[in-house]
Formats: sequence, C-alpha cells, structure tokens
Amino acid sequence: MAASTPISKTIYLGPFVHSKSLTELEICENGAIGVDENGIIAFVERDAQSFESIKSEKSEWQDAKTVKISGDSFFFPGFIDTHTHAPQHPNTGLFGKTTLLDWLQTYTFPMESSLSDLTKANRIYQNFVSRTLSHGTTTCAYYATIHVPATNLLANICLQRGQRALVGRVCMDSDLSPSYYRDESVESSIKDSKASIDHIRSIDPSGTIVRPIITPRFAPSCTPACLTAIGQLAAAEDTFIQTHISENVNEVQLVKDLFPDSKSYTDVYATHSLLTPKTILAHAVHLSPEERKTILEKGSKISHCPASHTLGLGSDVSGGFHPSILENCRQAIWVSRHLSLQSAQDSDKLSTEEALYLATRGGAQVVGLEDKVGGFEVGMEWDAQLVRLGVVDEAGNTGEAFGGAVDVFGWEAWGERVEKWVYSGDDRNTVAVWVRGRMVHRTGGYTGA
Amino acid sequence: MAASTPISKTIYLGPFVHSKSLTELEICENGAIGVDENGIIAFVERDAQSFESIKSEKSEWQDAKTVKISGDSFFFPGFIDTHTHAPQHPNTGLFGKTTLLDWLQTYTFPMESSLSDLTKANRIYQNFVSRTLSHGTTTCAYYATIHVPATNLLANICLQRGQRALVGRVCMDSDLSPSYYRDESVESSIKDSKASIDHIRSIDPSGTIVRPIITPRFAPSCTPACLTAIGQLAAAEDTFIQTHISENVNEVQLVKDLFPDSKSYTDVYATHSLLTPKTILAHAVHLSPEERKTILEKGSKISHCPASHTLGLGSDVSGGFHPSILENCRQAIWVSRHLSLQSAQDSDKLSTEEALYLATRGGAQVVGLEDKVGGFEVGMEWDAQLVRLGVVDEAGNTGEAFGGAVDVFGWEAWGERVEKWVYSGDDRNTVAVWVRGRMVHRTGGYTGA
Repeated sequence: MAASTPISKTIYLGPFVHSKSLTELEICENGAIGVDENGIIAFVERDAQSFESIKSEKSEWQDAKTVKISGDSFFFPGFIDTHTHAPQHPNTGLFGKTTLLDWLQTYTFPMESSLSDLTKANRIYQNFVSRTLSHGTTTCAYYATIHVPATNLLANICLQRGQRALVGRVCMDSDLSPSYYRDESVESSIKDSKASIDHIRSIDPSGTIVRPIITPRFAPSCTPACLTAIGQLAAAEDTFIQTHISENVNEVQLVKDLFPDSKSYTDVYATHSLLTPKTILAHAVHLSPEERKTILEKGSKISHCPASHTLGLGSDVSGGFHPSILENCRQAIWVSRHLSLQSAQDSDKLSTEEALYLATRGGAQVVGLEDKVGGFEVGMEWDAQLVRLGVVDEAGNTGEAFGGAVDVFGWEAWGERVEKWVYSGDDRNTVAVWVRGRMVHRTGGYTGA
Repeated sequence: MAASTPISKTIYLGPFVHSKSLTELEICENGAIGVDENGIIAFVERDAQSFESIKSEKSEWQDAKTVKISGDSFFFPGFIDTHTHAPQHPNTGLFGKTTLLDWLQTYTFPMESSLSDLTKANRIYQNFVSRTLSHGTTTCAYYATIHVPATNLLANICLQRGQRALVGRVCMDSDLSPSYYRDESVESSIKDSKASIDHIRSIDPSGTIVRPIITPRFAPSCTPACLTAIGQLAAAEDTFIQTHISENVNEVQLVKDLFPDSKSYTDVYATHSLLTPKTILAHAVHLSPEERKTILEKGSKISHCPASHTLGLGSDVSGGFHPSILENCRQAIWVSRHLSLQSAQDSDKLSTEEALYLATRGGAQVVGLEDKVGGFEVGMEWDAQLVRLGVVDEAGNTGEAFGGAVDVFGWEAWGERVEKWVYSGDDRNTVAVWVRGRMVHRTGGYTGA
C-alpha cells in the first residue's frame, strides 16, 4: 500500500517553485529540500550546490537517498482539488443541451445509481484516482454515491494508492431524486452515513490519508428533517461537511420554493447547523452580500468561485469538463479575463500567481490541511509533483521520448517557464508525484534517481 | 517532400464524423471513403461492410491500398486555423501583466525581429509546423515577420511538410513599431511583399499547398500611403489579405486618433481597398452595426469572433495561448457559455456541433477552400485526422501504449464519444493526419495499415 510504504530520508536537489503569498511565487533555482522518514520536510535550502556540500554540513543526512532533477524540471506542490464527483468521471464532457436540473436526471443519477455494482465502481474509481494523480492532484475532496460499499471502496482505493482524500457518501432523501436512486428515509440516510464514516476511520484512524466528509448533495435533495439530522451527525462526529450552493438562478429559485421560511439559500444551511469552519461550499455564484457575510462569520470555505480569499479550485467533474487542476487554473484565469473585459477593471483579472495559489495553499485551507501541504516549508509534508518541460533542439524537434506540449527554447527566464507550464502544460509534464514522501505516480519522462 | 510524394488509391474503412451543417454533425459508424491518386475523395459509402464487398462492386478499386481503423477511432476533417503568428510560438503562454499595445513592445517585436537569423527561424518554424500538424491542423493562415528570407523559409517548410498554408510577410512602416523592427519605407514594404509573393508562387505555382497572403499587421502599424500601396498590390496580384481589427477598446481609440478622417476602424480598411472577399479580419470584437454591414457587403471573412456565419476559428498564437484548434473550440464554447450566463439567452451558447463546424467548414470558407476541404464529400480532398480514444479496461486502466486523456468505458453512444473528444481530447488523440491523401503526421498510437 503506497500510503504505508516505508520511505528513506531523501534530499531533493534542483529548482523548486511554490506560492509565497496570494500574489507572489517563489522560484528557487538552486534548491534542496530534505524529507525525513515520515515524509516531513526537515530543511529547505535556497543556495544548494551539491549533495556533497549539503551532507558535509548535515551529518545526520549522510545516508540519505538523493534525487537530482535536470534544468528543464522543477518541483511544485501537489494540486488540491476541493470539489469533484468521482462516480461521474465517465460522463466527463457529456452535457448535451441540458441545464443543471435536467442534467442531473439525464446523466448524473443513472450513472451514480449504477455504482451499486462494485465491479463497475472499482473500474471507475481506480481509473479516476489514476487520472487525478497523473494530473498532479495529491489531495481530493470526493463526492461518492449513496452506496456505502462503493463509497468505502473509494476510500480504500485512495488509501491504497496513497492519495489524500475526503470521501463522502452522498445524502439525498427528497423526491427531487428519482425513486431508484435516493435514501429511503432520514434514518437510513443517517445510518448509512455513519457506517461510511466508521469504515473510513477504521482503515485510517489518524486520518492522515483518508477522512470522512458528510455530504448532503444540495438543499433540494434533502428534506428539512434530513438536513437537521445531518447537522447533528456532523457535530457529533466532528467531521467535514460538503455541499453545493447557489450554482445557477433556477436552482436558487427552487430552494426558495422548497424552503419558504428560510431567508436565503445560505440560511437553509445555517439554520440546519451545516455551516461550520469545516464546511466546503461548492460554486457560490449567486450569493447576496448578506449570504457572503454569514459564510464568512461561520468560517465556512468556498470551492471554485473567485469571491473569497479562503477558497480553492475544484474540478467539479463531471459538471466541469476536465479533471486537471492545471486546466482549471487556466479556466479560472480565462473567466476572470472575460469578466474584466466587461467591467473594464483590470483588478478583476486573476493572475497566474493567484491561480497557482488557489490550486495549492488556497485549496489546502479549504480542506483543513494548510499546515501540512500546499507549499514547501519546514514541518510541512512532501506532497509534490515534478514538472518537466520539453526542450526544443536546434532542428526544431522536441524530444521524442518526452511528449509534453510545452516548448522551451532555452532563453526563457524561470518565471516564463512557469507561465508556459500553466498555459500549455498537461499531465505529460507531471512526470512524478509524491504524497507524504511516497511516490504515488510516475511516467516514462521521470529521470530522477 | 510530403506535398509531392506519389500516393496510391486508398480506401479508408471505419467510422467517420464531419459537419453536415452549422448545427448538425454526421456520424457514420460503417463508413468507407475512397481517395484517388490525386488525394481527391472519389466515393463515400455509409453502410460499408468490408473491403471485399466494396472491391467487388468497384472493379477499378481492386488494387487500392486499404486502411481499416478500430472501433475506438474515427476519421474527422483536418482543422483549419484561420489566424496564427508562427514567429510568436516561443512566446506562447507569456503575457506577464501587459495589455495588447505594450505586449507588442515587450514580447512580440523583439521576438519577431530576431527571426532575421535564419537558423533561429528554421528552429522555430519547423517546431511550430510540427506542433500544429500534431494537433490535426491541416491548413493554417500564418503571419510571418517583415523578413523576406524567413517568410520564404516558412513557406518552404509548409510545402515540404505538406501542410496547406497562407503565408504572409508582415507589412509595418509606421513609427508605432520600433526603429529596429519595421519596413524602411513604403517602397521597401511593397518591394519585399512582392518578393515574398513571387517566391511562394514559384515554389507552388498552382497554390495547392502554399499561397501568399498580403499582411498589413493592423492599421496603426501602417502609414496611409502604405495602406494605399498595399491595397493596390493586393488587387494587382489578386491575393488574399489578412489583418487585425478592433481587438480592444484602446486599440479602437488609437485608430480613431491616427485616422481622424475615417468613419471607423472598418472604414480605414474599406477606403484603402483592403476589404475584399479574400480578406481575413482577425478578432472583430468591438464592431458597430454599420461596420458589420460594411464587412458583410464586401464579403470579407472574420477569424475568431462568433459574430458572423462566415467565420472560422484562429488560435492566434501567441496572443492566444494554445496552438490546438480543439482547445480553441473549447475556449469558444466556454466564452459563449459565460456570455449566455450574463444575457440569460440560451441561444448565445455555442454548441459542440457549431464549434466543430467553425473549426472545419467555417474555416475553409475563410481561407477560400470550402470546395476542397472541411468535410468528407465526393470531389473534396482527403485532409483528415484519425482520432483515437482511450479505452478503459476492466481494472480501470487505460492502455499504457496509448496515453490520451479521454477515457471511454464502452457504453458511450457515438455522439458522446465525439463530445468526450471535444472536451477532454488533445494531440495524443490525433494519431495520424493527412493532407491531400498524403500522411503528414503520425504517432505511436496509429495502428492503421
């Protein structure tokens, strides 16, 4: 099991890049990072010359393993996906002409329902965890389905493959959901959620790799009695909570119709004790100033919507069309540029630095791991990806053996290399991925040793 | 030279997909397309069973070569990029915090100027033609630089590699351009443009693969005297013309200041005889209704902006950040969805079908090739790409040998496979590319024989 493979003390030598703040990247060309047997970063040097010079200064690192990377590569923190639906992966790219509410009925519910078949669930979940790892995602907040066995299987797979995950059995007992795919009663919804929480805590008692997250799908999917019981369960179990909020105007109207006594969509969650500092709210597109204030006061986190500083990026597969957080960085930048064209406010533009911050440190805050992952700091853990860029030779060819989409000609400054990766890179450029110091993915492009 | 390699009559057997109209794709699962020795499509069958059955009906195809593709693949017309800057390829992804006019001074002019060095030009152009071919682009409208030798080299490379191209030496004589990178005089601008036109016509007299295109960079880059002379040259030589128009509001204001006697940006081009049915106008974001009417009356074409039916997609490298037209389809859909969110008009949304039409038949209209390429019709030429999708095995793995980003589970309808390609595909899925029946690119994922 990747998550429990013993590891050696290792020194990683070469360029590294990470976010110093929301607006600033640190690019360190001559870096050296020491990672101990527990996967924890023991030192970060910024002017390292060689393994010899490091080892001569640090006697306890004499026997450390060494990984040196070449000049076309750099270490970057693993990405954090704060919102995605693993069972919907096979539907990625399929929307037809539907909008949110009928898309659920046409594509989503039939697919999710079919994961009562564990053979099918295994095929889809193994594939999706492989995909997200290959894109450098080291931590994921997953929505599973209503099924306890398939949800537990997803947690098992994440633990086995070594990907950090919040894994949530979906709660949905209202008749918005079809009769073939919903919780039978409030009692069964709570009992099944509890069973999945118990399983996840039994396989990883410290919660280092996998943790449970209580997951009411969204307000319209749950009866008020169920929301109340879910709030109580979350408090009793002290777990994370994830749900959707205010993604589009039809949905907001539906919530108004279904919960006539609530002041707002946010108020529905607030009055059912579902807004806590451990709550992740996805989308949050159409919130009123008062709703934003409530969410801020409760300390809840937002996934995906550039409207708060405590936010991260979510791929939202399969509503979103790509599992790569790098692709989602580009989309966030793209949308913000479009908004700034209309508002003529340059300040609305998300910069490359900001997008990368949201993909790492911002996401870490959302999933409660800001002290452990998202940057390269002493005391944090080695959740990292090795990014390699293609170098164009004199004849104009990029190396055959390494087929990334980024072309580096050799004259680019380091900041420009990072920009090229953000705008043209893909999973081919992520040649190795580590979680807690353990390698969880590598490609033929990895040459470290 | 790919463009002149002799070819055999070939029958392509397997699924094909192309645009029937702006809103409708034809998906033919049991297709067979016969391509003759001139690369021209001689027959298209829609219910083909085998090579034997076809050959038994068509005696003159007894000795034809055969290419059969597997069920995870389909033929699609090659993409047409109606607007891109080959010399800016090394700057892809680099904008920093600049806007259009200072981006030109900071990034664009220094890079373009450096292509006076033919070794450097060869490296960049070979690399970019490889890149665009690998993304399935069979026809490109290229801006080169002001240099005659480097522009001619780009045309040579396109001819040699077999990619259809319009290749334009850039005209720019005003002092908006830096003294180190501009035409010395109106006379030298015209003389150099003529020299490049002559070269391109000498290497491909029929214009089957490469054709010249007169390329005033954009109105502010040229003096009125130069624009007049360029209009006269285009008329005398009967060539295509390409330029930029109305990309952002600062630029529109600049044109107003520089050409106080003109009614509009469009009027500047109209009064200098630069709006013809062979003119490609890039961007066209901020046009007045009157300007649109003028462009429509002149029969000029628009690249990139979803505002007319006679338009195609352009990658606009390096202002645009990706050479792939598939990626640009996604961006066009993305922008249109964003617009429709704001206007609440579902009709503003570009569909998958419409984006693919613009990428093929729409683009063909823009470059004057609508009778030859963009679809699979008898009498048209075989400009095609073979798209292969990754199939997920029972254990959840996608085949190692073939590393595309699309996951097909086997239960998807054909329309869904095409959607998955559009939303998740990349150059790995384009495993072979043909122009006029000649293979101009293939990857290890190609298994046809």
